[in-house]
Amino acid sequence: MIRIGIMGYGNLARGVECAIAQNPDMVLAAVFTRRDPAGVSILTPNVPVLSADKAAEMKDDIDVMILCGGSATDLPAMTPRFARDFNVIDSFDTHANIPAHFAAVNAAAEESGHIAFISLGWDPGLFSVNRLYASAILPEGKDYTFWGKGVSQGHSDAVRRIPGVADARQYTIPVPEALDRVRRGENPQLTTREKHTRLCYVVAEEGADTAAIEQAIKTMPNYFSDYDTTVEFITAEEMAKNHSGLPHGGSVIRSGVTGWNKECTQTIEYTLKLDSNPQFTASVLVACARAAMRLSARGVTGCRTIFDIAPADLSPLSREEMLAHLL
Amino acid sequence: MIRIGIMGYGNLARGVECAIAQNPDMVLAAVFTRRDPAGVSILTPNVPVLSADKAAEMKDDIDVMILCGGSATDLPAMTPRFARDFNVIDSFDTHANIPAHFAAVNAAAEESGHIAFISLGWDPGLFSVNRLYASAILPEGKDYTFWGKGVSQGHSDAVRRIPGVADARQYTIPVPEALDRVRRGENPQLTTREKHTRLCYVVAEEGADTAAIEQAIKTMPNYFSDYDTTVEFITAEEMAKNHSGLPHGGSVIRSGVTGWNKECTQTIEYTLKLDSNPQFTASVLVACARAAMRLSARGVTGCRTIFDIAPADLSPLSREEMLAHLL
Repeated sequence: MIRIGIMGYGNLARGVECAIAQNPDMVLAAVFTRRDPAGVSILTPNVPVLSADKAAEMKDDIDVMILCGGSATDLPAMTPRFARDFNVIDSFDTHANIPAHFAAVNAAAEESGHIAFISLGWDPGLFSVNRLYASAILPEGKDYTFWGKGVSQGHSDAVRRIPGVADARQYTIPVPEALDRVRRGENPQLTTREKHTRLCYVVAEEGADTAAIEQAIKTMPNYFSDYDTTVEFITAEEMAKNHSGLPHGGSVIRSGVTGWNKECTQTIEYTLKLDSNPQFTASVLVACARAAMRLSARGVTGCRTIFDIAPADLSPLSREEMLAHLL
Repeated sequence: MIRIGIMGYGNLARGVECAIAQNPDMVLAAVFTRRDPAGVSILTPNVPVLSADKAAEMKDDIDVMILCGGSATDLPAMTPRFARDFNVIDSFDTHANIPAHFAAVNAAAEESGHIAFISLGWDPGLFSVNRLYASAILPEGKDYTFWGKGVSQGHSDAVRRIPGVADARQYTIPVPEALDRVRRGENPQLTTREKHTRLCYVVAEEGADTAAIEQAIKTMPNYFSDYDTTVEFITAEEMAKNHSGLPHGGSVIRSGVTGWNKECTQTIEYTLKLDSNPQFTASVLVACARAAMRLSARGVTGCRTIFDIAPADLSPLSREEMLAHLL
C-alpha cells in the first residue's frame, strides 16, 4: 500500500482524498492543516488531521506527501520545505515561474534524497505531455491550446475584487470558429481575442452601479481588455443554483506536415471535458504519487515533471496486463 | 547525430525516410532490402541501399534499425533476428500476438544487450499510451476506441481477394451517434455494429457479377458480417482519382467518475486525423528511435513498449526548453 499524506485541506485536497479512495493500492495516512486541526473534518473515517507543523514527525509513515497549496504564495515555499522530509507532489501552475520553482525544489530534494514532482495536473500536466508527444512526432507543425468552456478561478477572483461586486463567476470559452479552423489543420495565426471569449456572471451589491462594474470588468488589463467579454448580472440564488460547480476543460491541438514534399497534414488533438476541475487535477496528482513511490524505490532523487514519468509507472497494472489490455 | 537504418522499403519505410529528414539530430545511414538493391531507388541522396543479408556488416554504423516489415509474416521473425545486432524498433500491430512477440524479442535483445521497442505507431502506440494515462487517472470509467474515417488495408485486401474484384478500398467509419454519446460521458454499451460502419469502393472486372461480389463482401465473417456495410462500384479512373491516399485516424475516449459520491463525470479524448497513415506511423517510429538511442546509452536492454518511454526521451529539446515552452 502506498501511504499518502495531504498537506492543506481545500477543494483540491478533498479531490485527492476522493481519488485515494478510488485506488485500492493507496491509503490516506494523514491530513495536515495550518488551521486548528480540531476544526477540520474530513471525509475518510479514522484518519488523523494534524497540524502542518507536526508533519515531520510522520515522515516514516508517509510515502508521498501531496501538497495542496496555491501557486501564488503557498507552493513556492511549501514544496522545497516539505521535500526535505518527504517525497512530494505539487500542482504549481504559474507557467512563467516554473524554472525558478524547479530549481528551488530540485536543490531541496537532491539534498534530502527525496523525489519531487512539480506542476502536475492538466495544464501544466496532461496538456504539457501532449504538447511534448505531438511536437516530437510532428517536428514541423504548430501547437494550439484552447481552454474551456470552464470556470477560471483567477478571473472570477479578479471580478470579485471590483467594488460593488458581491459574487462573480467567469467562464472562459473557446471561439468555435477558431477551434474548427485549427481542427481542420489550417494552422491559422490567431490573436488572443480570436481564440477565447469571456463570460462573467455577477451578483451586484444592493444599490451598486452595474454600468460601472461592467466597464471595470471589460477594461481590466491582462484579465479582460484583450478579450470580447460579456457581463450578465444575476441574483445570488441564480448563482448558487446554476454556477456552484467548477467545470473546466480544453484542447491541445497540433497540426503538422509529413512527406518528402510536406504534402500530408496530420492533426493530433487532446481534449478534456471536466465536471470538476479540482477533482480531476487531484486524480492526476494521485496517479503520479504512484510513480513517485516507484521512482523513489529505484533511488531516483531530485525534482522531476510529468515529462520524466514513463507511463507504465502511473498504472497499477502489471506489464502482462498492460500488454494484453491496453497496448 | 543518431544514425538510423531502415529494413525493408515500402510505404512505411518511405515515411520513415521522410521523417528522418525532418529531424535535424538524425541521419539515414542505410536502407536494407530483400529485393535486388540495384532495383530500389530511395529519396535521400548519397545513402546506400544494401541487401538485408549484409545488415550485420553495418552494425557499428547504425544506432537504431527501424524494421518496416508486416506484422503477419515479417516481424515475428525479423525483430528477434535483428535485435541480435542492433537496437530495433517495430510497429507490430497484431494485438492478440503481442505478448508472444514481446517474449521472443525480449529474449533476443537481452542476450545481445540491445534495446528493442515493439508495437509502436498510433494503435498500438499513441492510442495505447492514452488508454494507459486515462485509466490510471480515472480508475472508475470505461474506454472506447473508434477508428476512422480511414482506409483499412486489411479489409481492402480481403475485398480484393474476392473473385471478380479488380481493385478495392475499404473505409472504416465511426457511427456519429455512438461517438456523440461517448463524448457526452454516457458510457453506453455498444455492439460492434453500433460503433462502426464499413464503406467499400470496388472496381469490378469486366463481366463480373456485381451482385455476387456485394453479397460476398457483406457476408464475409470477421471482416464484414458484423457491420452495416455499403458497397459502391466505381471505375478504375475514379479509384485512382479519389482513393489513392491512405488517410486514417480515430479517437480514444475514456469517461470516468470522481468525487466521494461519484457525482462528477470527467471525459478524456485523444483524436487523430491523418492524411497518411504510413507517414504518421513512421513519424512515431522515428521519435521513438531517439528514445531507444538514449535508453541504450543508459545501459537499458531488452524489449520495451511505448509505456516504458518517459516522454522527455522522445524530444530533441533540453530540459530547460521543455520547462519553458512545453510544460
